[in-house]
Amino acid sequence: MTSLQSLALNAMNLAGVAAFGVNGALTALRSARLDLAGALILGSVTALGGGTIRDVIMGHLPPTTFVDWRYLLAAGLGSLVAFWLGRHLVRYLRILEVADALGLSLFCATGAQIALQGHLGAVQAVLLGVVSATGGGLARDVLVRQVPTAFSEGLYLTPAALGAALTVAAEAAHVAAPWPLVVGALGALTLRLLAVKFRWNAPRARFGPS
Amino acid sequence: MTSLQSLALNAMNLAGVAAFGVNGALTALRSARLDLAGALILGSVTALGGGTIRDVIMGHLPPTTFVDWRYLLAAGLGSLVAFWLGRHLVRYLRILEVADALGLSLFCATGAQIALQGHLGAVQAVLLGVVSATGGGLARDVLVRQVPTAFSEGLYLTPAALGAALTVAAEAAHVAAPWPLVVGALGALTLRLLAVKFRWNAPRARFGPS
Amino acid sequence: MTSLQSLALNAMNLAGVAAFGVNGALTALRSARLDLAGALILGSVTALGGGTIRDVIMGHLPPTTFVDWRYLLAAGLGSLVAFWLGRHLVRYLRILEVADALGLSLFCATGAQIALQGHLGAVQAVLLGVVSATGGGLARDVLVRQVPTAFSEGLYLTPAALGAALTVAAEAAHVAAPWPLVVGALGALTLRLLAVKFRWNAPRARFGPS
Repeated sequence: MTSLQSLALNAMNLAGVAAFGVNGALTALRSARLDLAGALILGSVTALGGGTIRDVIMGHLPPTTFVDWRYLLAAGLGSLVAFWLGRHLVRYLRILEVADALGLSLFCATGAQIALQGHLGAVQAVLLGVVSATGGGLARDVLVRQVPTAFSEGLYLTPAALGAALTVAAEAAHVAAPWPLVVGALGALTLRLLAVKFRWNAPRARFGPS
Repeated sequence: MTSLQSLALNAMNLAGVAAFGVNGALTALRSARLDLAGALILGSVTALGGGTIRDVIMGHLPPTTFVDWRYLLAAGLGSLVAFWLGRHLVRYLRILEVADALGLSLFCATGAQIALQGHLGAVQAVLLGVVSATGGGLARDVLVRQVPTAFSEGLYLTPAALGAALTVAAEAAHVAAPWPLVVGALGALTLRLLAVKFRWNAPRARFGPS
Repeated sequence: MTSLQSLALNAMNLAGVAAFGVNGALTALRSARLDLAGALILGSVTALGGGTIRDVIMGHLPPTTFVDWRYLLAAGLGSLVAFWLGRHLVRYLRILEVADALGLSLFCATGAQIALQGHLGAVQAVLLGVVSATGGGLARDVLVRQVPTAFSEGLYLTPAALGAALTVAAEAAHVAAPWPLVVGALGALTLRLLAVKFRWNAPRARFGPS
């Protein structure tokens, strides 16, 4: 990657981490009475969890999310913002939903590309993109004992899978360097925002708990 | 291993993954309203979770379950079968219990042997066998917020430990190549099926929540 | 490290593992009806979970907690003691709280030092100390479906962070070998015991579920 591309990628990635940090701490604060330390931990778990699982799977240890202090700073600042400004931020849920969609979109594209760089196949790359994008939110929901939003709240996994698949397809077509990431992230973002706006759902099973 | 042995092992392993995939997706569908993507993810987590944890512990990264597309395919097909045929399969719970017991038995034996190949001790090999066999089901139960079946439903951990111990003992006695696996898997399978049929339980603590 | 220092560290570490094992199995037995195998697994998860996560993050695979049979033995014995003597131990909750505080204190200090030995930065070392000290209890609470004590019960994360920070500061000041660990562990222990005695809490968010 050129240094300009790398800079853009890092900036977008850090924005995603911060957005997930705010979102994670706020979601946690709304479902459990937490103190400052708990909000910091849960915000950081949401922000860094997906990337950490991705790096463990790829054998990149210690994980980038852990070694690079900028990720820790972005996650921590995001959590602190949620803790101190939470009462006011709750009004702007739409902003948070967009931020969450942005984090989801960025991580599914970067996760897929990291898998391809590690010589995994196309299906594995899509899977790793989905894991990177949704792993942090899953860990947060497990810790505060909620049914994972990824399973219950409209289209969430599908946009991540679409974005990762677009990145993989663009890489397979030898599209030049930043564009596979951009195409993947934009595809995921578009589908996620449309799904939120029009309350789309994936097909449900014809049976289940009633 | 000879190629015939390796072939048999792989075939049995993949059958176990597919069985766990069906079982995982069905169990998840019965306790939470899931869409297609959620059923796929939860079936795959159940099918691949134990092997992934095993490979992370052994430092085999990226995990085999993630690199080998046949595992992904078996897990995905198993989940899809559960999603589309779920209403009909629920009648054949006995078939699913046998399939689950088969997966449990195969994974405890292969997990123990992989630990021995990595030069871990006998106790560690038994433990890794149990983790491989039960890790996927634990992860599934945590995600759908059930008390893990492994802790509450008759003898489940014990057959896995027995199977892993038999494999370790046979390896220690220098039994020829496929037999340690076969003996371990058959031992675990027998104990698990007997425990299901006669509703055996491990001794319980004399206190607890009432 | 000299062999005397290494001996002291190992002895303290193993005592911490055993204490966490008793504590974990007891906590699990009080919130779910478990059989012998379940108590063993949950006690061991509590005792070894934090160290295992720490070693996975650092890329020390297979994890020390898994390779070194003394850790397994200490965790297993602790769990068995809780299973058989549980009814009597429940009376001595104060002893268990001290044991838990001891485990917390030892692991935050050793976790931080292991991170520094792996050339991570100061913030990362504090974070790894907290993860080592609290990871096992978090995993236990998730498996028995409790709100993690770390988030709800007084000052718990803060003493771990303080201990890890003291160890990092002492290392930065080139204090001689066992003292960074001792200072960190004593600092964490003091704050945790004071917090238990005087029911101190970290500041809470001004909103949350009511």
